[in-house]
Amino acid sequence: MNLNENKSLPEQTADKIVQYIINNNLNVNDKIPNEFELCEILGVGRSTIREAVRILVSRNVLNIRRGAGTFIANNTGVSDDPLGLAFEKDINKLAKDLLQVRIIIEPEIAAMAANMATEKDIEEIFKKCNKVENMILNGENHMLDDVKFHEAIARCTKNSIIEKLIPIIDKSVAVFANITDRQLKEETITTHRAIANAIANHNPTDAKHAMTMHLLYNKDKINQIVNDLTEK
Amino acid sequence: MNLNENKSLPEQTADKIVQYIINNNLNVNDKIPNEFELCEILGVGRSTIREAVRILVSRNVLNIRRGAGTFIANNTGVSDDPLGLAFEKDINKLAKDLLQVRIIIEPEIAAMAANMATEKDIEEIFKKCNKVENMILNGENHMLDDVKFHEAIARCTKNSIIEKLIPIIDKSVAVFANITDRQLKEETITTHRAIANAIANHNPTDAKHAMTMHLLYNKDKINQIVNDLTEK
Repeated sequence: MNLNENKSLPEQTADKIVQYIINNNLNVNDKIPNEFELCEILGVGRSTIREAVRILVSRNVLNIRRGAGTFIANNTGVSDDPLGLAFEKDINKLAKDLLQVRIIIEPEIAAMAANMATEKDIEEIFKKCNKVENMILNGENHMLDDVKFHEAIARCTKNSIIEKLIPIIDKSVAVFANITDRQLKEETITTHRAIANAIANHNPTDAKHAMTMHLLYNKDKINQIVNDLTEK
Repeated sequence: MNLNENKSLPEQTADKIVQYIINNNLNVNDKIPNEFELCEILGVGRSTIREAVRILVSRNVLNIRRGAGTFIANNTGVSDDPLGLAFEKDINKLAKDLLQVRIIIEPEIAAMAANMATEKDIEEIFKKCNKVENMILNGENHMLDDVKFHEAIARCTKNSIIEKLIPIIDKSVAVFANITDRQLKEETITTHRAIANAIANHNPTDAKHAMTMHLLYNKDKINQIVNDLTEK
């Protein structure tokens, strides 16, 4: 997608390492050649290799395990903030926009999950559902475990794009636009449970409706909070 | 989202530059301080600053204009391949997965666009629609202009997440999973035109249906091509 124009040598070298990974069919957790070997393979100096590797670490293509070597990262190539939401200035609008996208996508995903979930998927969903419920009841911050519940549902679809998108969008709510202040405790417990049950019963309509209800509770709450804030 | 553990000094410095950008409320095309000034502000050496800037260039946070300085990039923080699709091994599955996501999202977006499009938005959509039509009639490769047509529709929603997601997903079809070989010329012309007209008429139902039809033609074609390939 990018032309070579204007790319520094470390960046060009980073691109070559990516090509090496693809051509050699390396997978998550595979070790890549060491600095010395990469110098040989790519015909550049050691400091360039080191810088290229740092660029790829920052893009979550590689990770360095001290004393062990450099490996292909989990969720290869998906950085911490792939949509650049850290640079959004209006957090209230961001919160509303994220939820609008969730309302479009997640009810359909819940329906797909109900169609496709295996016994193992369902077990995983109930495990995550129970964990969030316990955290809410104990007054703990459940935001990131809540994301894991939604991720588990996304994984049922076996669609790699959906598996990547849902964590990005849902984690963004927790990290960049956490304005709900973890209210809606009862509603979350009830609707999460309804989603999990519908998926376990392979009932796509119920799963879709339960997910819609879950997200609409959130929408009402966000609108209410944002309106309160703007009235002040 | 990331803890500081295991981060190299250039990465930590890159994070600090991001914080500087946010705290100083810098916008797209704003110039950041030069290397010398950044050394002063962040208290690190020049080679560290240079490496940190390269990391941020590779994440599309900054871009360097030779002789002019370093600036905040367009589409700040969204890299070329934010979903890491270059690392997907099964291109046929990727093509199907991308289309499945488009079928979930884009009809809803077309409906939103019909509700919200301004006169200027509509003008823009027809311009892009005409361009793609001409390219198809002239036998040119219209894939990236096709993406621009869908981007123009996404922009009508005024939802920043949708504006970011659609180019990522639609461009991925062109770059990583282009297996349709630009067939469906007539169907593309007809359904694009129907989408544009429905948005211009502020008719969300027609816009949604036209977009659904457009994407289902693509789905049929992809399934047909993949089946042909696997039978061979």
